[in-house]
Amino acid sequence: MNTIKTLAEAFNQTTYSLTIHGKRNIQVLKDAFQEIEGDLASDMYGAGSVIDQFQNKMAKLLGKESAVFFPSGTMAQQIALRIWCDQLGLPRVAYHPLCHLEIHEQDGLKELHHIEPVLLADKDRVIQLDDVRNITGDIACLLLELPQREIGGQLPSFQELEAISAYCREQGIKLHLDGARLFEILPYYQKSAAEVCQLFDSVYISFYKGIGALAGAMLAGGEDFTKQSKVWKRRHGGDLISLYPYILSADYYAEQRLPRMQQYYEGAIELASLYNDCPAVTTLPVVPVSNMFHVHFSLPKAKVEPILISLYETTEVGLSGSLREDSETTTCSYEVSIGDRYAGIPKDKITNAFKKLDELLREAAL
Amino acid sequence: MNTIKTLAEAFNQTTYSLTIHGKRNIQVLKDAFQEIEGDLASDMYGAGSVIDQFQNKMAKLLGKESAVFFPSGTMAQQIALRIWCDQLGLPRVAYHPLCHLEIHEQDGLKELHHIEPVLLADKDRVIQLDDVRNITGDIACLLLELPQREIGGQLPSFQELEAISAYCREQGIKLHLDGARLFEILPYYQKSAAEVCQLFDSVYISFYKGIGALAGAMLAGGEDFTKQSKVWKRRHGGDLISLYPYILSADYYAEQRLPRMQQYYEGAIELASLYNDCPAVTTLPVVPVSNMFHVHFSLPKAKVEPILISLYETTEVGLSGSLREDSETTTCSYEVSIGDRYAGIPKDKITNAFKKLDELLREAAL
Repeated sequence: MNTIKTLAEAFNQTTYSLTIHGKRNIQVLKDAFQEIEGDLASDMYGAGSVIDQFQNKMAKLLGKESAVFFPSGTMAQQIALRIWCDQLGLPRVAYHPLCHLEIHEQDGLKELHHIEPVLLADKDRVIQLDDVRNITGDIACLLLELPQREIGGQLPSFQELEAISAYCREQGIKLHLDGARLFEILPYYQKSAAEVCQLFDSVYISFYKGIGALAGAMLAGGEDFTKQSKVWKRRHGGDLISLYPYILSADYYAEQRLPRMQQYYEGAIELASLYNDCPAVTTLPVVPVSNMFHVHFSLPKAKVEPILISLYETTEVGLSGSLREDSETTTCSYEVSIGDRYAGIPKDKITNAFKKLDELLREAAL
Repeated sequence: MNTIKTLAEAFNQTTYSLTIHGKRNIQVLKDAFQEIEGDLASDMYGAGSVIDQFQNKMAKLLGKESAVFFPSGTMAQQIALRIWCDQLGLPRVAYHPLCHLEIHEQDGLKELHHIEPVLLADKDRVIQLDDVRNITGDIACLLLELPQREIGGQLPSFQELEAISAYCREQGIKLHLDGARLFEILPYYQKSAAEVCQLFDSVYISFYKGIGALAGAMLAGGEDFTKQSKVWKRRHGGDLISLYPYILSADYYAEQRLPRMQQYYEGAIELASLYNDCPAVTTLPVVPVSNMFHVHFSLPKAKVEPILISLYETTEVGLSGSLREDSETTTCSYEVSIGDRYAGIPKDKITNAFKKLDELLREAAL
């Protein structure tokens, strides 16, 4: 008896998955802790060498005075905006309509901090200097997400970024970086993390995107800013007695993967090009500027899903475990992030899979 | 060359420490994960079998409809109070003057939730029914901490607790349990966790007090309450992609140590009695009602500290790694929590240490 497989099931059964680093399972923790001595002392409520050393290391890498480890980016970023709003006595910030704070945090910024966001730019493009210039009324802080994840990971030019930064400094607007995927964009900008971060007053980075650790975030900035952020971290309930499971794994995977960001970026460009050669497929951006992009099919989900399942079963290659119906129901899409896995897959497996995808989509488009 | 040791250093070098379970080091995590298969899937943003199973298990143990795992009690309790305040449209709660929310959370309840606390009872005693009856104005919720940690872990009688619960139900006041050390008081009350919890509308328990896991908390109550708590958990930045390091270790140590609470409780009674036989020492409470108590010296810290250091060095027995100067600077104190270690220490070592302490304190008191 055959039962119909879901896309996720079919994807999980493939031998060659083109995306991310690997499965999110307990082995991720086990690998990170294998070589760590058992008698190493836990951090204690934000103090101790385990947390201090990692904070100092990251502050240096980001070119900031100081950095504070947080259990999540949601917590770190709300707090960053709150500090800037309090400092300027102005509970108003600006960010992109698809900002994480606007669409993924159950309105924490509004419900907990009573901060009013101004949405800049159209949903389908990144924020430009003109958007900032045209804000009506004052704002305490502008948040820029680099790359803009929800539109496939797009970026402004570095020149545009410099212009926005200069304008904000001139206007007394604090500039905060949502750098959840900061390291992933450095190969495109050909800049160091510190060179990007020096345009910003405060910076958040994540440890489970390109770095692929368990969870956790770092918030960096001036000494006074990070000191205040620790008070808010306590208030939010993020000042745990022990954060070392996240800290030590973040350090472990950062060491491994920060040097591979160029490889992931090149993989994304190569893979996007394979997608764009297929009928009814375009990637956003067409040429990726990080390790990520979105794949859009100009066919309904109901048509694409069985194609993907069939593709996974016949080629052993997995492209994505999920497929999102786009608003108009005539198109669908998914996100691709390149990690460790991609480079290890035999080229002929990939070529064969895309040949097959091309055939299946041609048939479907008829 | 001799350098003067600090109390913490001397304590850490003793062979026989009478308190808690063991050192808070990475081995605590390693032990918990030793037997867990690497291919077990991570929880994902509050979903998945790892978190579901543990939440269900704890809900059952606490006799509540539902339970939600939180990274911290600070987060869980603010959220519990917020939900009850929102439900009654009344941002006012009552708790003890030495409540965790009042003295250890940087005023998160006020700064993030704008909830006004009414402080009940004197600092040095537990809340009684009369304190609740005499509240001026309405409150949405009363928080009771069992045992009251900052005064040595004191408890009201179970009868008093039942009377408070009945009164709150009659008055429409929600009753929340700060049960950070709930399991530690069950031997004294001779009740099950569910029997205590049924007096309360919502319950928080901690996994790193008597249970001695890494960190983490559970918030339990009715289905509607816990559902709302998940939204607030996201807002607080506590809905991490992976919480399994805390969940799986909490489960591991709960299995080990929940059955030992009677042993810890009896150890506390025995040890407190040894302290009370020494001159210039009293414990609070005199007879413990949980695994914890406070040790008060009627001598200044400057006199007691060298006595303890000398005691640790000559007897190999460690009593406490810290010593708090009390307000008037003529007395000092520390907290004792009994865990795994106490029962494993040879009785003659303990007897010998208290004989020595008795001698040293007699000399000092002259």
